[in-house]
Amino acid sequence: MNIVLLSGGSGKRLWPLSNDIRSKQFIKILKQKDGSYESMVQRVYRQIRSVNKDASVTIAASRAQVSSIRNQLGGSVGISVEPCRRDTFPAIVLVSAYLRDVQGVDSNEPVVVCPIDPFVEEDYFQMLKRLSDQAEKGEANLVLMGIAPTYPSEKYGYIIPEDAKEISRVLEFKEKPVKTAAEEYIRNGALWNGGVFAYRLGYVLEQAQKRIDFTDYHELFSKYETLEKISFDYAVAEQEDQIQVMRFAGQWKDLGTWNTLTEAMEENCVGKAILNDTCSNVHVVNETGLPILAMGLHDVVISASAEGILVSDKEQSSYIKPFVDGITQQVMFAEKSWGSFRVMDVEEESLTIKVTLNSGHRMNYHSHKNRDEVWTVISGRGYTIVDGMQQEVAPGDVITMEAGCRHTIVAWTELKLIEVQLGKEISADDKQKYPLE
Amino acid sequence: MNIVLLSGGSGKRLWPLSNDIRSKQFIKILKQKDGSYESMVQRVYRQIRSVNKDASVTIAASRAQVSSIRNQLGGSVGISVEPCRRDTFPAIVLVSAYLRDVQGVDSNEPVVVCPIDPFVEEDYFQMLKRLSDQAEKGEANLVLMGIAPTYPSEKYGYIIPEDAKEISRVLEFKEKPVKTAAEEYIRNGALWNGGVFAYRLGYVLEQAQKRIDFTDYHELFSKYETLEKISFDYAVAEQEDQIQVMRFAGQWKDLGTWNTLTEAMEENCVGKAILNDTCSNVHVVNETGLPILAMGLHDVVISASAEGILVSDKEQSSYIKPFVDGITQQVMFAEKSWGSFRVMDVEEESLTIKVTLNSGHRMNYHSHKNRDEVWTVISGRGYTIVDGMQQEVAPGDVITMEAGCRHTIVAWTELKLIEVQLGKEISADDKQKYPLE
Repeated sequence: MNIVLLSGGSGKRLWPLSNDIRSKQFIKILKQKDGSYESMVQRVYRQIRSVNKDASVTIAASRAQVSSIRNQLGGSVGISVEPCRRDTFPAIVLVSAYLRDVQGVDSNEPVVVCPIDPFVEEDYFQMLKRLSDQAEKGEANLVLMGIAPTYPSEKYGYIIPEDAKEISRVLEFKEKPVKTAAEEYIRNGALWNGGVFAYRLGYVLEQAQKRIDFTDYHELFSKYETLEKISFDYAVAEQEDQIQVMRFAGQWKDLGTWNTLTEAMEENCVGKAILNDTCSNVHVVNETGLPILAMGLHDVVISASAEGILVSDKEQSSYIKPFVDGITQQVMFAEKSWGSFRVMDVEEESLTIKVTLNSGHRMNYHSHKNRDEVWTVISGRGYTIVDGMQQEVAPGDVITMEAGCRHTIVAWTELKLIEVQLGKEISADDKQKYPLE
Repeated sequence: MNIVLLSGGSGKRLWPLSNDIRSKQFIKILKQKDGSYESMVQRVYRQIRSVNKDASVTIAASRAQVSSIRNQLGGSVGISVEPCRRDTFPAIVLVSAYLRDVQGVDSNEPVVVCPIDPFVEEDYFQMLKRLSDQAEKGEANLVLMGIAPTYPSEKYGYIIPEDAKEISRVLEFKEKPVKTAAEEYIRNGALWNGGVFAYRLGYVLEQAQKRIDFTDYHELFSKYETLEKISFDYAVAEQEDQIQVMRFAGQWKDLGTWNTLTEAMEENCVGKAILNDTCSNVHVVNETGLPILAMGLHDVVISASAEGILVSDKEQSSYIKPFVDGITQQVMFAEKSWGSFRVMDVEEESLTIKVTLNSGHRMNYHSHKNRDEVWTVISGRGYTIVDGMQQEVAPGDVITMEAGCRHTIVAWTELKLIEVQLGKEISADDKQKYPLE
């Protein structure tokens, strides 16, 4: 069984936890039985592994997300990297070509595509298996999951089935409706379109040829930026006559806003927080080390991270996007394949960051044109390579690197250091990478 | 004219801006005409200087407050340092002895005592002059300011005057009453006791002899810790028969809670903040560099500093104290006589801080037993002295100091540096000071 997880974009609606480089699906906010927290990505991947042990899982993701995926899921998951964002049709064609040409999946094998971040239980993943089996049968070219609506939502598209059977032909798609229309659809048996569907691999690659001229994955990858932005629903699903929908009535939540996300939280607070007893329906997600004290609030979400602080009425929080668009700020925290960094201080001609390298990992070997750097190791052990010279380091060791000097650090254990960048033009783009000599 | 300003204690009720080492009167939150912000201390001192140009001003303050006072008011103001906190009677006796024995004030001269942090206008300071003149006349031993009440407050003590004249004999004092009693007092012409009074210097020193055996300021200072904790009202004012009250009907506000403080703010936001248009009566005081976004809130105060984040209904904010008492945290920001520091990162065996030295200032020459330190200069110019060796420093220079090594830095211009402290037992108390060699 082949499962493709579509990893969506930046998701400013969960600011300050999500931002241009950290998508909401990577935020560790969901409490596990052992008390630790996992991200939506980790939860979904764990659930897949528990239900469909042998499934081959491939994530279609942007370049910026690769580090977070490797960090959170390890190396065994496949990643089809999108060179840039081009909507769902190009993304699904690219990952389909990746499955055929890189992973060697046969064109007759079924593939199930679903978003990476639904908040669901195990029955959902059992359903994915049934979708896959149904697609394999070949009764239809495309088999969709139709989610039994729980309220007349204006946020989702609707699928109109031919009849009320568990598997039915699809008559029609409806765009996000107004509430009265949604009520009408539901009375007539419509289902939510949650973006989950299965097909035999060859089908999508054939459909792709109608719009894109390419022979294999590598050619498609290299011309990806030139492709038209178009959704899979519009380019394929809505044009297809041989199309079925399977009814799913289990739990399905889209944790796309603070309102829905806080509903899925097991506790009112993640991180340091005190709520006094006159607070009601207040949720706090605090990624900073600062204590948060909330008093006398109702129906409010508070979230603090290195990017900023949100305090919002829960209903109002769904209107967050234009305000966040107006906040232009340096990236203050980032997960990397080797660990993470956090900006601690920004001055005109200096930038101070805390770097954490995971055990056994290393930075790229690199140099900067326009800045000097000073590292002070504060914990852990490893070694540096500076202009080809290797040197062991331990807490208290200081490494100074002038502009132009090539450098990296390799962590034997988890290793933390304070990096001071100094220069008149400090920019994240000022970085040349080299192979290790 | 001698004015004594009593500088009160820690004031956790304005957490996270005030804390154990920063009292509320030093928070720069009041907007001036030129757009910059001043603290309550700066505002009061500026107002005194504008009304009573030649007044001699002495501040009775704790040791921990001396740096902030020097930083905010400069060197011309007198400071009577209390070795520890012993309530208002010992504090007023100590500053009175300081005036006589250190500043050489004659025993017949009048002295006016008032709190350092009332939010008042110039008429209040004109009133201080009249109090002083009245005390000098000698009609009474003690002349109080009685503030015309604007509502039946349960937070203040009341003064019951003999009659309704502008200057009247005091019949009685009343402790903070319940509301109905306060209403009754006000109907009968009672006035608020704002802790403002005048006396001839010799009077208080005579009264002091009844309770404390001392000959001069230095003896009193050295035995200060052994003195009984007792208020001036209880020890003196309530025992005195020759006592008058002068009526004051101008603006007088005590900015002791978030509720009253936000009423005195000229704008809704100090620091980085966005309020959407569904917010009403929301105030933000943000000392961090993080943007704050507030949506759909009503009657709420938000404050963020290096110590923590408060989000509170304004009414509820007056109940803050027990919650803040429960937050035990490292001091994250401090003003020093030479500048300031901010804690940026805390690990088990390291602490990283940003140090800002004001132009022309220097740290004490000192060493640490149990920690090494690394300085990276990020801006400004000056020189270090390390174990007696002097060396000029500029941005990018790194200074490493092992435990035991004596060191200081002198700033020619404003100078900023990142200090990494390394050791198994990092403590603010681990500091030995030395004279410069």
